[in-house]
Amino acid sequence: MKTVTVNLGPRSYPILIGTDLLANAGCFLRKHGLRPGSVAIVTDSVVGPLYQKTLTDALVQAEFSPVVIEIPAGEEHKNLTWLSFVYDKLIAGGIERSSPLIALGGGVVGDLTGFAAATFQRGVPFVQIPTTLLAQVDASVGGKTAVDHPAGKNLIGAFYQPRLVIIDVSTLQTLPEREFRAGLAEVIKYGVILSPGLFALLEQRLDSLLRLDSALLSEVITTCCQLKARVVEEDETEGDYRAILNFGHTLGHAIENATGYTQYLHGEAVAIGMVFAASLSQQRGFCSDGLCQRLCQLLKKAGLPVIIPSTVKSETLVAGMATDKKVAAGKVKFVGIEELGKTRFENLTVREIGAYL
Amino acid sequence: MKTVTVNLGPRSYPILIGTDLLANAGCFLRKHGLRPGSVAIVTDSVVGPLYQKTLTDALVQAEFSPVVIEIPAGEEHKNLTWLSFVYDKLIAGGIERSSPLIALGGGVVGDLTGFAAATFQRGVPFVQIPTTLLAQVDASVGGKTAVDHPAGKNLIGAFYQPRLVIIDVSTLQTLPEREFRAGLAEVIKYGVILSPGLFALLEQRLDSLLRLDSALLSEVITTCCQLKARVVEEDETEGDYRAILNFGHTLGHAIENATGYTQYLHGEAVAIGMVFAASLSQQRGFCSDGLCQRLCQLLKKAGLPVIIPSTVKSETLVAGMATDKKVAAGKVKFVGIEELGKTRFENLTVREIGAYL
Repeated sequence: MKTVTVNLGPRSYPILIGTDLLANAGCFLRKHGLRPGSVAIVTDSVVGPLYQKTLTDALVQAEFSPVVIEIPAGEEHKNLTWLSFVYDKLIAGGIERSSPLIALGGGVVGDLTGFAAATFQRGVPFVQIPTTLLAQVDASVGGKTAVDHPAGKNLIGAFYQPRLVIIDVSTLQTLPEREFRAGLAEVIKYGVILSPGLFALLEQRLDSLLRLDSALLSEVITTCCQLKARVVEEDETEGDYRAILNFGHTLGHAIENATGYTQYLHGEAVAIGMVFAASLSQQRGFCSDGLCQRLCQLLKKAGLPVIIPSTVKSETLVAGMATDKKVAAGKVKFVGIEELGKTRFENLTVREIGAYL
Repeated sequence: MKTVTVNLGPRSYPILIGTDLLANAGCFLRKHGLRPGSVAIVTDSVVGPLYQKTLTDALVQAEFSPVVIEIPAGEEHKNLTWLSFVYDKLIAGGIERSSPLIALGGGVVGDLTGFAAATFQRGVPFVQIPTTLLAQVDASVGGKTAVDHPAGKNLIGAFYQPRLVIIDVSTLQTLPEREFRAGLAEVIKYGVILSPGLFALLEQRLDSLLRLDSALLSEVITTCCQLKARVVEEDETEGDYRAILNFGHTLGHAIENATGYTQYLHGEAVAIGMVFAASLSQQRGFCSDGLCQRLCQLLKKAGLPVIIPSTVKSETLVAGMATDKKVAAGKVKFVGIEELGKTRFENLTVREIGAYL
């Protein structure tokens, strides 16, 4: 088992990464200072049936009394209505101020449960057990929690750090292949913006990764968590530097929005967005042709899309970018790339960005 | 004008206290680092008609573009439904991540707006302009924000500090007398738990205060803000020490709950709760008979109730205390009093507390 510590002063926490950790989750909670007693597990209708029993048994063994709260699977349920449902269940289950909330599932469950933990009784201990590759390399570091609003994703949320993250890579065995590949987009992103070494490793060993080699998975996920932790440690609440993590996301979000969040998984849209960002940087003269090609190749090898769908109009994408919550005074801090591991911020209007579509 | 600084490291902020400050609010915002542009004012159907125009004009003068969001007055609207209404209006009004949210009103508007500011886009700048005595001496310091849940008050919320608080004591001229008197209960509380000097001043000059003498109001409110600031600085998120502010609140909340939040104002219920707490301390042998009497006398002089209504059954109060969010492992950290300025925590079960009813 590997441990990555996210150093945020009094809000520091460990991420445990390895195989078959779920069956020992109760011990990990105890070991990391969470007292036995009431605990709530929030999961969804897909992950619950697969792993909820293993987790519940592990918690009971460690003298916790778990209450299970299941929400229907899917981003369309990451909203105020289901948040309110979770609050009701927490109250009905007798969850107190010191009782931990555990998120067992992917990004939707993690974001919604994290926001519930941040706000129930003004904050209760939060534990994350991410079961998708995307959630393991992205949501497990950084403390971003949120629910969606009809006007946009993640418009309502909070920065709230977990007490503990448990990444059991064995849970990836049941993840649909398309979701695994979409998660790889964020893994590749860390290589592009922060680590030429990771990028090269992915180029060399992508096949083993796609075969779900456990040791390699643990290694790669650990590297991603370490890389993201260093960024978040420098800039916990996205004042400035942390925005490099949005590489590929300005257009990615707009594509998801334009296609009603049904056609592309988040990682797929981000893959297209990364190629666009690299291409924009290239056209503006500060990124080599070679890098753009290498990125395209790796994404394609991972089975990810790299081209903006012809069915989506440029105007729709421009309008979508204009409502992004990173817009300030009409400008976007666009994340470009100079070379592997070296990003470059540019303050551009959405019109200026749109000119490269 | 007086200034109290609440020192919380990067979350420090000033409280400005004086007469006729509302008409200069725009300048104060600019002076304290808030950039001109979009700004939202959240107010209610009682305070809005009185002061919204003065504030809007002041903001426009300082080059802000205000959007006014009005919610119906009353605690029954401090819930997820009206929070959601505020989110919708913020989005419709084009409020961005750097746009401040201003709460113009009493505790309900302050709590709900603060929670909206804490969670909209994961946090936007928050400015408080409290217009009731209770909100001026209580809600303006400490960063507690929340909405109610049918199962209990303030069950959903966050700790979120404002950037700036503007206390215009002139707004107290339009506050109903009963609400002013209820606010005095919290003022008296600060005297009891933290300052024999304030308590003596209140005993001597209560009449002038009830006549709304501006200079005295500014002095007393400044003292209360300073006292509360020192407590919050020591314990921002209510780990331990801050709980002394709950003096009178364990029973107070139960009385409000038992009477459906209609019969007593918060301060009135707290007045009864303070007398009960002092009496409990006296019966347990660590508070003099004299203190309990002095407290009763001052509260009565302020026109506040001091006796538990005979219509409310003890069992109802015990059941109410059991659902209080300060209960941990079945026990309440009850705030008792030894002498003026000296509190004493006791870990008691609600049954033990109930025995003194």
